[in-house]
Amino acid sequence: MTEAREHGRPSRETPLTFEGVPRSSHAESSRTLMARFRTGTLSTLNGEGFPHGSFVSYAMVGPDPVFLVSKLATHTKHLDVDSRASLMVAEPQEDRPLASSRVTIIGPCERTEDVEVREAFLQRHPEASYYVDFSDFGFFRLRSESARYIGGFGRMSWLTIEDYRSAEPDPLHEAEAGIVSHMNEDHADAVLAIVRAFTRATEAEVAYMVNVDRYGCDFSVETSGGMRPARVGFEKALNSADMARAAVVALTKKARTKLAGADD
Amino acid sequence: MTEAREHGRPSRETPLTFEGVPRSSHAESSRTLMARFRTGTLSTLNGEGFPHGSFVSYAMVGPDPVFLVSKLATHTKHLDVDSRASLMVAEPQEDRPLASSRVTIIGPCERTEDVEVREAFLQRHPEASYYVDFSDFGFFRLRSESARYIGGFGRMSWLTIEDYRSAEPDPLHEAEAGIVSHMNEDHADAVLAIVRAFTRATEAEVAYMVNVDRYGCDFSVETSGGMRPARVGFEKALNSADMARAAVVALTKKARTKLAGADD
Repeated sequence: MTEAREHGRPSRETPLTFEGVPRSSHAESSRTLMARFRTGTLSTLNGEGFPHGSFVSYAMVGPDPVFLVSKLATHTKHLDVDSRASLMVAEPQEDRPLASSRVTIIGPCERTEDVEVREAFLQRHPEASYYVDFSDFGFFRLRSESARYIGGFGRMSWLTIEDYRSAEPDPLHEAEAGIVSHMNEDHADAVLAIVRAFTRATEAEVAYMVNVDRYGCDFSVETSGGMRPARVGFEKALNSADMARAAVVALTKKARTKLAGADD
Repeated sequence: MTEAREHGRPSRETPLTFEGVPRSSHAESSRTLMARFRTGTLSTLNGEGFPHGSFVSYAMVGPDPVFLVSKLATHTKHLDVDSRASLMVAEPQEDRPLASSRVTIIGPCERTEDVEVREAFLQRHPEASYYVDFSDFGFFRLRSESARYIGGFGRMSWLTIEDYRSAEPDPLHEAEAGIVSHMNEDHADAVLAIVRAFTRATEAEVAYMVNVDRYGCDFSVETSGGMRPARVGFEKALNSADMARAAVVALTKKARTKLAGADD
């Protein structure tokens, strides 16, 4: 038994999060990352067989990234000769690069005139309407055949392509930033109640919400060993961003009830 | 003669910047971009010959990017079989992706035990000292054989590798952000004087400095046609960030003298 445990506090090694708290699968996290961003690195093959990375805008059509590119661009010249390609999308994270989430989608990338591709691209990149009909521009679709996900330190996997293709982006991903800042700015007491009631940080004095998704919320909690992560799950997975407010309110009420009981 | 010219104002098409104002070469801009950032996309070849993009931390040893990678990582496995690789580094620019500056360095990427590589990497990534000596980690150096630079809309080129290798990162790149915010926050009047005196925006009422480099300063100037770019050169190229303050002060004095003369 460690000293930390004797003092009724978690040791540095004990996670603050209880076992079994639900979280997104790697396939879901990959799809969410792809949905959240709109630029990435397209890797193509040059004439000497070297892999060439270039910066691209993309949109998603289901699980496949699509591109609007000029035939004058290097990657387009490459793809017209050899369709083998991949797209890597990373969460910008200049300060703690290895903690960045990123995903690589690999497969053949070929020209398409599918109207669904055009619509998806223009919806995600309205500015492209200025040049979409220039004669040198055309659409490409990367047919995802394999996918590699890295969610930061030690959280990584090759996804089965069926899992990747059938997963959905998290329905809260667009609303997430707003919910998180609202909770931290206006409901710091609720955040603290949730952390105290539903994680091992029962004596937390300072905690911030850092993320919310359909399965629950992630927090950063001040401890004697520094800021540490903790996660709390919702009772059931949310199907839309509209359900987030009610779910967080319910979680807060349940936390306060539990904490009040503990005080008796 | 256009109406705008008759009114003594530049038309929408006339650049605000005078001809011949010095600016960085594409090779210099590439080297500066590589020096400024420390993460990028490494493209390697997988077993089926597909190009695989992965997120990496890098440092620079002269013109060559160097990496500290685990033999467990996908890209390391790829490189140990086939050294052909490229590194793409892009300025983060989620809002206006096509305006982003980016550079791709292409060449063989091989293991190295060069102490210079180790030192450069640890200097740029002090956090790596925790795992640098783990037995599965090792250094790689990408020997730059070709380089593609894209500086935004219509400013792009294949660099000759001699130009890329012999160019220097801009000596002001670390100090730039501080100089720019100081000028905009504390010396808006000086910024406006420089713009009025040394660009075609002689009647500018609102202008911001957006960039400073060894050759001069870039501004964004409010015009009837919206915000437009303008550039003013220094009398001679600066060799260090320490020279920036004196150069901007000199430019401001010269601008005020010129404007006072014009008022007479």
